Parts: sequence; structure tokens; C-alpha cells
Amino acid sequence: MTSPPSPAELVEAAGTGSPRAVARLISLVEDDSTGGPVLREVMRLVAPFTGRAAVIGITGSPGVGKSTSTSAYVTAFRKRGQRVGVLAVDPSSPFSGGALLGDRIRMQDHAGDNDVYIRSMASRGHLGGLSAAAPQALRVLDAAGCDVVLVETVGVGQSEVEIAGLADTTLVLLAPGAGDGIQAAKAGILEIADVFVVNKADRDGAEATTRDLRHMLGMAPSVEGGWLPTIHKTVAARSEGIDEVIDAIEAHRAWLTSTGTLQKRREHRAQVEIEALALGLLRRQMGRLDSSDALADQARAVAAGETDPFTAADTLVAAL
Amino acid sequence: MTSPPSPAELVEAAGTGSPRAVARLISLVEDDSTGGPVLREVMRLVAPFTGRAAVIGITGSPGVGKSTSTSAYVTAFRKRGQRVGVLAVDPSSPFSGGALLGDRIRMQDHAGDNDVYIRSMASRGHLGGLSAAAPQALRVLDAAGCDVVLVETVGVGQSEVEIAGLADTTLVLLAPGAGDGIQAAKAGILEIADVFVVNKADRDGAEATTRDLRHMLGMAPSVEGGWLPTIHKTVAARSEGIDEVIDAIEAHRAWLTSTGTLQKRREHRAQVEIEALALGLLRRQMGRLDSSDALADQARAVAAGETDPFTAADTLVAAL
Repeated sequence: MTSPPSPAELVEAAGTGSPRAVARLISLVEDDSTGGPVLREVMRLVAPFTGRAAVIGITGSPGVGKSTSTSAYVTAFRKRGQRVGVLAVDPSSPFSGGALLGDRIRMQDHAGDNDVYIRSMASRGHLGGLSAAAPQALRVLDAAGCDVVLVETVGVGQSEVEIAGLADTTLVLLAPGAGDGIQAAKAGILEIADVFVVNKADRDGAEATTRDLRHMLGMAPSVEGGWLPTIHKTVAARSEGIDEVIDAIEAHRAWLTSTGTLQKRREHRAQVEIEALALGLLRRQMGRLDSSDALADQARAVAAGETDPFTAADTLVAAL
Repeated sequence: MTSPPSPAELVEAAGTGSPRAVARLISLVEDDSTGGPVLREVMRLVAPFTGRAAVIGITGSPGVGKSTSTSAYVTAFRKRGQRVGVLAVDPSSPFSGGALLGDRIRMQDHAGDNDVYIRSMASRGHLGGLSAAAPQALRVLDAAGCDVVLVETVGVGQSEVEIAGLADTTLVLLAPGAGDGIQAAKAGILEIADVFVVNKADRDGAEATTRDLRHMLGMAPSVEGGWLPTIHKTVAARSEGIDEVIDAIEAHRAWLTSTGTLQKRREHRAQVEIEALALGLLRRQMGRLDSSDALADQARAVAAGETDPFTAADTLVAAL
């Protein structure tokens, strides 16, 4: 009988390209997403190997062909010799619903390719938000030597904003159809998209959708030295136009790097993540105060009209 | 020329029943909802006079007759000699959209009644959530001597859960119609409702809706000594069945008081409010650290792979 590998052993194995070790590590961070000791150990161990992967967010309404497109992008990145990770946080995706790395890959084109890691994650809440463990899973894929990580999420509710918060480059997929362009503007997608892809471009209306997008981009305020989102047409099911999209992603990355924007974005992302974790820690510290009755005492005083919630909060913070 | 009344003068005037002073105070807390000095002073001044009002949440889908019902409840409470406050946080309500206390009351039945305070508040976000200032406005109405405060909000998204967090007694309004009962179960309304009202009970299907509700309540796990939600039929537009609803509200309040549940709920509510305010304070403190570069330094270290977000958060919290 052998004992299960330790996090340190798993991180070492993941670094040498073991899909099984990557899968195990992601399971560990998913199972311990509230910040327990295992997650903390894994994050500490992978930190030195992170910061290399290009993180590409892929979002769009249901039916625009996100999964087919993601699969086509994987093929194209592989042809360029890149190791690719995929995080699918899309309830409508064929990768979702319990698909795992390695042994249960549903993305059949890439089965058996040890340089492609595919992982589906449960979405947080019914609006298709990102999984709470997505940033941690990203770090694992990054540390495992992925050159590119594609994060696919359905474009509803908060998820497209969340994905833009995680990704270096955000692709917004659209399909031809009346009002799609206007919907895009409504959802604030214009502000998060670095690259627009009009997929299913062999259908009626592709030209109109492209024109609408171009019109809206023309009206958007442009920033001196900023990135002007590009628009591309694809038929992902027939692999048409995919290389142009990959070229656009690489052009955006070159722009991010040369202007220092990549560094700034990553630092900002780290700030947001650290702040959220710090507030979580403080909330738990107050929880401990709670059991020692400090919060409960203040609450009783507020309920009795002896103090007000603001003064109570001041007292509590001072006691931390 | 006289200077505008101070918060202390306004609180005194509100205590003697001045609708204008109440309106001014609510405007002050609404305008300063981020926790500035004026809001803090008002909260401190009103605290000793709070804790007396019965807070009744009224929620339900658009079209069930919430506004007509609220107006009918106000009339019924007034007949029982109660001073009534109304907070309407319902974008579809005729009270909403800039209606004010006193001079711009749209609830014409109660215009000129100095013992009825009506206030509409903008909802937070497009899903109709409660206004951020709702708890503070509630405190003002409570301190102004309202025996009852009715908080009306449309039952979509988070609002029905939020209202249950604020209210002592939560009314869920339904109208006859296929699937309404099932919708109620889906939305988790069963868990928050203390009193169900099937309004528009003169319409087809009222009996079926009542039966569905009764059936679902029968299946819900009952708690020993717990409150079993009651079901009532009304035609608010003709004031039919209203007294039975008011009786049910008062019966629920008697149960809350006799079992000590009222005290527990209010303390829990105060805990949640204090904790949220304390976390807001800590977030601002971290913001100050940010400008002194502590958070930015940690973010740079994470982006460079020198540390991980969890260790960085620990460091930041230790520095507070």
C-alpha cells in the first residue's frame, strides 16, 4: 500500500507534465475552496511557477458556438507548439457536468494529447458566474507549464465581467442575428472585449452583425495608446478563420507586453484577489470574536437601542 | 434667514410627529448612505428611540396587487389606531419614482394623514433589490414613533430574501394563476413567508392556488414550536379579507414576542448589519494601506510569483 502523493509531490509531477497530477491538484483546490490548509499549501508551492501562461477568456451568449470555437482554438494553439489548458465554466458546454482531465475528456479531438489539459468547473450560482475556485485552478494550470489557458464561460449575468477580471485577453463571441450587436452593447460587453468573433459567419446576417459592431466601436470613446478591439469572422465547425483569431490574440498579447499593460493588469488582479481573501480572513476573525461574544454583545446593544450599528462596527474593528 | 435645522433638531421634531422632519432625516441618510458623518450622527441620535416598530415585509411578483394591498393594510392599521410608515422599494409601484413624504404622496387615500409616513426609495440594481439605505430609513421611521412599518418590494432576484432579513413578519402575496404556487416554491419563498396572501381572490384559480400552497406547506418540514405560515384570501381593491391579514400579522407578532424569537431575530439582524459595516471599514483601511503601498507591494509580489495570494492576505491583515 502506498500513501496518496503529497501536494509537494503532485506539484513536482505536474511540473513534469503529468495530467493526472494536474487533475489531482485542481481537485484539491476545488475541494478546499474556502481557504483551508491544503489549498494554502498548494498555492504556496505553485506560486514560483506562475505568471507565464497567457489567460484567454472566451465568453458569449448560449448558442454562439463557444465550445466548438474553444476546441478549434485548442487545435490551432497546439499547431503552434503551445501547451494548452482549458477551464470550462459553462453549464451549457459539452465539457461541463463532471467532465474531468485525462480519463473523461469529452473534447474528443484532444483526447490522448498530453499537452492539453481540460477541466470543467461547476459555475457559482444559477447565473453562470465563475467558480469560486477558478483563480486557483488557473494558477495550477499556469504552474503546470501551460503556455495558454482558455477560460470558457457563458455570457450571462456577472460572468463576462468576472472573466475579464481573470483574463489577459477577452474574446467575445457573437452569432449573426438581429439585435445581437445591440445586446452586446447593453451587456457592457464592449467594455470588456479585446477581440470580437462573429462565429457562424456562413449564416445570414453575419455582415450586418459585423457592421453593427464596427459602428458601435466607432462611437465608443477611444483612449490614446489604447487597444482598439478587432473583429473577426469564423465558422468554427469548419475551422474557418481560426488562425486570424489566434493571430489577433497574439497581437493583443504583444500590445499588452510592450505597453506594460500586462504587468499592470496582473498586479491589479492580484490586488483584487488579495483584498477579497483578506476580507474573508477578517470576517472569520470577527466570527471568532462572535463566539467570544464581542459581536453578539454589540448586536444586543443595537437591538436594545443602546448604540447604533455604525458605532458598534467601530468598536468591533477597534477590538480586532 | 434661518440656517437649516441640525440633525439633532430634526430628530427632536420627528419624535413629536413632524412628517417634514422625518422626510428630511430620510433624505439625509439616503444622501449619505456610504457611512459619512451625517449618517453616523443621525443613527447615533435615533438609536435610543428605535426597536419599537413592527416591521412588515410585503413581497410578491409584479401584478399581484402589492400596492393596492399595502394601501388597504395602511387603512386597516390606522383604524386600529396605529401610526404607520411605508417604505416602497418597488420600481413598479405607483409610490415609486420620486414620490416623497407629505407633499407628493400618491397614495391619495392617506394624503393629509399625519400619522402615515410614505417613502419610496430607489431600488439597488436592476433586479429590484432593496435600497442600501433601507435599514437606515427603517430606523428613522421607527424612531419617529411608527407602530408599524410596511416595507414593500417586488419579489424578484435577491429582494425577497433581503426583505426577510429586515422584517419581523414577511407577507408573500400571490395572485391566482397556473404555476404561481410552484414558482413560489422555486424562489424559496416558502422559507421566508410568515403569512401568505392570495390576492385577487375573486378571480378563477384562487382556490387552486390556495390548495397548492397548503399542499406545499404540508410537505415542508415543520419545526417543533415553529410558526406555521397562514394562508389568506383577499380582494384588496374592494378591501375584502384585509382584517384577517392584519389579525394574522398581529398573531405572528404575538408568537414572535412570546417565544423570544423577535429578540433573537433582531439581534441576528443587528449582527449581520454590524458585520457588513465593520468589513466596509476594514476595506477602507486596506484602501489606506493601499495608498501607502502595502497592498500594491503584495500584489506585485504575487504577480511576480514571489508569494501566493493567501500568504499576501495574511501579511496584509497582520499589518492592519
